[in-house]
Amino acid sequence: HSCSCSRITPTPLGEGKSTLVGLVQALTAHKRCNSIACLRQPSQGPTFGIKGGAAGGGYSQVIPMEDFNLHLTGDIHAVTAANNLLAAQLDARIFHEATQTDQALYERLVPAVKGSRKFAPIQLRRLKRLGIEKTDPYALTPDEIRRFARLNIDPHNVVWTRVLDVNDRYLRKITIGLSPTEKNLTRDTSFAISVSSEIMAILALATGLEDMKQRLAKMVVAFDKTGAPVTADDLGVTGSMMVLLKDAIEPTLMQTLEGTPVLVHAGPFANIAHGCSSIVADDIGMKLAGKRGYVVTEAGFGSDIGMEKFFNIKCRASGKVPNAVVLVTTVRALKMHGGGPIVTAGAPLRREYMSENLDLLEKGVPNLLKHIENGLKYGVPVVVAINAHGTDTAAEHELVRKAAKAAGAFEALVSNHWAKGGEGAAELAQAVIDACNRPSEFKLLYEVDMSIEDKIIRIAKEMYGAGTIELNSKVRDAIRLYTEKGFGKLPICMAKTSMSLTGDPSVKGAPKDFKLVINDICLSAGAGFIVPMCGEISKMPGLPTRPSIFDIDLNTETGEIEGLF
Amino acid sequence: HSCSCSRITPTPLGEGKSTLVGLVQALTAHKRCNSIACLRQPSQGPTFGIKGGAAGGGYSQVIPMEDFNLHLTGDIHAVTAANNLLAAQLDARIFHEATQTDQALYERLVPAVKGSRKFAPIQLRRLKRLGIEKTDPYALTPDEIRRFARLNIDPHNVVWTRVLDVNDRYLRKITIGLSPTEKNLTRDTSFAISVSSEIMAILALATGLEDMKQRLAKMVVAFDKTGAPVTADDLGVTGSMMVLLKDAIEPTLMQTLEGTPVLVHAGPFANIAHGCSSIVADDIGMKLAGKRGYVVTEAGFGSDIGMEKFFNIKCRASGKVPNAVVLVTTVRALKMHGGGPIVTAGAPLRREYMSENLDLLEKGVPNLLKHIENGLKYGVPVVVAINAHGTDTAAEHELVRKAAKAAGAFEALVSNHWAKGGEGAAELAQAVIDACNRPSEFKLLYEVDMSIEDKIIRIAKEMYGAGTIELNSKVRDAIRLYTEKGFGKLPICMAKTSMSLTGDPSVKGAPKDFKLVINDICLSAGAGFIVPMCGEISKMPGLPTRPSIFDIDLNTETGEIEGLF
Repeated sequence: HSCSCSRITPTPLGEGKSTLVGLVQALTAHKRCNSIACLRQPSQGPTFGIKGGAAGGGYSQVIPMEDFNLHLTGDIHAVTAANNLLAAQLDARIFHEATQTDQALYERLVPAVKGSRKFAPIQLRRLKRLGIEKTDPYALTPDEIRRFARLNIDPHNVVWTRVLDVNDRYLRKITIGLSPTEKNLTRDTSFAISVSSEIMAILALATGLEDMKQRLAKMVVAFDKTGAPVTADDLGVTGSMMVLLKDAIEPTLMQTLEGTPVLVHAGPFANIAHGCSSIVADDIGMKLAGKRGYVVTEAGFGSDIGMEKFFNIKCRASGKVPNAVVLVTTVRALKMHGGGPIVTAGAPLRREYMSENLDLLEKGVPNLLKHIENGLKYGVPVVVAINAHGTDTAAEHELVRKAAKAAGAFEALVSNHWAKGGEGAAELAQAVIDACNRPSEFKLLYEVDMSIEDKIIRIAKEMYGAGTIELNSKVRDAIRLYTEKGFGKLPICMAKTSMSLTGDPSVKGAPKDFKLVINDICLSAGAGFIVPMCGEISKMPGLPTRPSIFDIDLNTETGEIEGLF
Repeated sequence: HSCSCSRITPTPLGEGKSTLVGLVQALTAHKRCNSIACLRQPSQGPTFGIKGGAAGGGYSQVIPMEDFNLHLTGDIHAVTAANNLLAAQLDARIFHEATQTDQALYERLVPAVKGSRKFAPIQLRRLKRLGIEKTDPYALTPDEIRRFARLNIDPHNVVWTRVLDVNDRYLRKITIGLSPTEKNLTRDTSFAISVSSEIMAILALATGLEDMKQRLAKMVVAFDKTGAPVTADDLGVTGSMMVLLKDAIEPTLMQTLEGTPVLVHAGPFANIAHGCSSIVADDIGMKLAGKRGYVVTEAGFGSDIGMEKFFNIKCRASGKVPNAVVLVTTVRALKMHGGGPIVTAGAPLRREYMSENLDLLEKGVPNLLKHIENGLKYGVPVVVAINAHGTDTAAEHELVRKAAKAAGAFEALVSNHWAKGGEGAAELAQAVIDACNRPSEFKLLYEVDMSIEDKIIRIAKEMYGAGTIELNSKVRDAIRLYTEKGFGKLPICMAKTSMSLTGDPSVKGAPKDFKLVINDICLSAGAGFIVPMCGEISKMPGLPTRPSIFDIDLNTETGEIEGLF
């Protein structure tokens, strides 16, 4: 069986990952089922920012948390290396094309080795795409030589960016090529955080080595001066990226505090990519757990973001469907959605969150109900897990339970995994087992045959509750171009704040009929989706005045890490 | 025993690493001595450029070469991460200082956690450096608050740069901070290749965790508006860098084709850093090999670069001295130094290099003799290894042997390790054993108490054969500043082309009394050296029109890497 784990709209108060960990602990140790958790690897950037670790908490954690939150086995570094090799080759190619004649370029691209010229296999693939069915480098006409050797990249239409796994705000927008050696071929570009790289999304979506290779090859990195897409394969980088990623495609086996296996793999950004753990890890997990076992896989953030993309992108790619959805909520987070005061890191928590307040809670419940409604639209049972805090009251828990059940949740229960580990999530585990035994009536939200715009509208109305969708003219032009170039039938990967059902992170609760503005759009042809942007989505976080950097240290006597939470 | 391995001035024809590998193979398998090779980890940048692998060649290689030339255990990625975390924090700090009052800045740097403010240990260290002997955050005067909270970094005098392990020429000079979120606080800077990071030099020079921490803390990343140095510790990043580097300080155990252990560790650039494998690896190697065993450690490039820095920087830091120096030469390389034609990659090799030419060879021998002379200046026996090629003739070998012996080499022998593995280097191994049994009369080239300028002059005259040294006014000013700020007694790490004894890579042979121009200088306070630059030293290579990227691929059926040499 498999089960995906999402949550309500996140707040600074929420904990999602610990529930997933607690659940597999309960399934394994208390329900005697083979079970495996599949988690994303967290970015190292936020570890040194304000976020702290992402290994869960209390008695429901992945260990060792230091490795989990740092390099681990280097997969993110491999993604960074592959991404930036492609970027370096892209700019180097623009430079070499700008400074050489067609013939000189061709003779260098297909060099005489011991007197004889030969195309590399990746060059033969490019010839094929150009419709040139020749394999002898001496047989090309001057026109064919020009078409083969000149990618003719439009420097103003390069869409590939460099990445680093660090919160470095000064790299959000940069000018490159300012050294005299680059002969004034400067260009504006940016660095994003590594986990936002399309390569990370591919790592999570690839079903195997060959599929990964096909996807990497297809990545559109720029458009040429005629508007035609230029791919990673055109730049000759597919094989080198594969070599850099050959170990990254293997998930890393870790464990929970109670010894339940955890497969950690890939970590696509949930707000701009699809935010799920990998297909490869889920496949391995399902094989290892067996038919009667359970795999619980992460579908990051709320149902509007994590779950929607989990179904419409990941399940569509893998062909596999979960038996149940777990939806995590907390009383505190619902109070915040009900209008509770803003929470500031470091400041003492306000009274509203520390004592019973049924009015505020009731006002916040609609956010939970919208997420339940969203889950049910896929025909899969939704189990609501109320992640308990010490200051919650029984009446508060009961209010949430009743509302969830009335809205169609298969079950809604309090889970005490933070305080008690697997034992605290035993009832939740039983509910998940029961839900997984129910026959599924799974359906996707949209067919890929629909137009790009219709797919966006479907998601925005059905999942977010939007009334109208506004696309600016730049977005409309891009949609026209993508459709014309054959990318119209890709699924949609919305880039929207995870902090609200709307495009505005400050709007809590479950608003209805709001306007959603799509102000930018981009293409991830290799990952296989179109990314509409709702509002400003930063792909590069920054460091605050006092990042957690100040607290982190290595004890040189013991070799132990200190101050990393 | 220990032995360092350098070579004559490199040419595109030289092979240095295979001799080192062949030598340990011979010591182990044919001389029955415990022996261990200590090699640098190569940068991944050149692997995808034109250089190809760096694992040796023929029957004298480190295996598996794919891992050796790619991520290996991620040490270079860890250096990149630490380097760039420091850079991100530096620019973020400039930003936060520019946009906040003293009091706001202070309150954020020392936040009230549950109502109470407390300095982090790293902040107490900064207070101490400022001469403020207080530990209570509420006790600082407004002036002390200002001095503590404002690093006051001069954006035009930031010396720390970002790094990436890729040949990306467009990053040689960039403008950062162009996003509106950075409020026009733009700045010109650059990316260098990761192995040129001062952190890589520290990894190679640290004698242990605590020494590494002290060195990282001391790194000068910028100067403030009064000209005072600002360190990594002032930015609060020391502990976080230590955590990122905690596994990188462990060498990686690999092996040669014949099973001899190889410790691979660190990889400081030889032309701008000190170019040697690590002190930690040598120490482990010597402990494992035992008193009667042999450690052969890499001192990259020619004696002017690799060996000089090996002695005056690495041996000075470690307190350990080698028993012998192995100096590698080839007949072909000497012919090139004698005025042989330029060699172009891919083109068939010219006749001069393929058949006997004693005249040309004799004209090139002075380059070898200069390197022998250099080695002898340290009072250590120099064993010359003539790395044999199939087209060399016996007369050519004899000419080189005789000249080397006449110049004072302890021994000079032909080595056939490329074709025959350890067996081919058995005579060389015996010569090294004999040399190591000779009592050593080791002396360094200069004392650190000499002025920076005098140390530069000593190296240039004694090691390169320079007649005069020219320092421009910028360099003189910097030397004055470094001396005034207490950095005058550091050893010197010359940044000079490795391709010539002079500062001009096109000048071959062994010229005398030339003028050496020092046109820039920088400080590596953590690594513990001053870096004078002779000519343009690029810290960021570029990709050629047809990089080896095109040939490298992963076979998705077998999982094997193809096209990586």
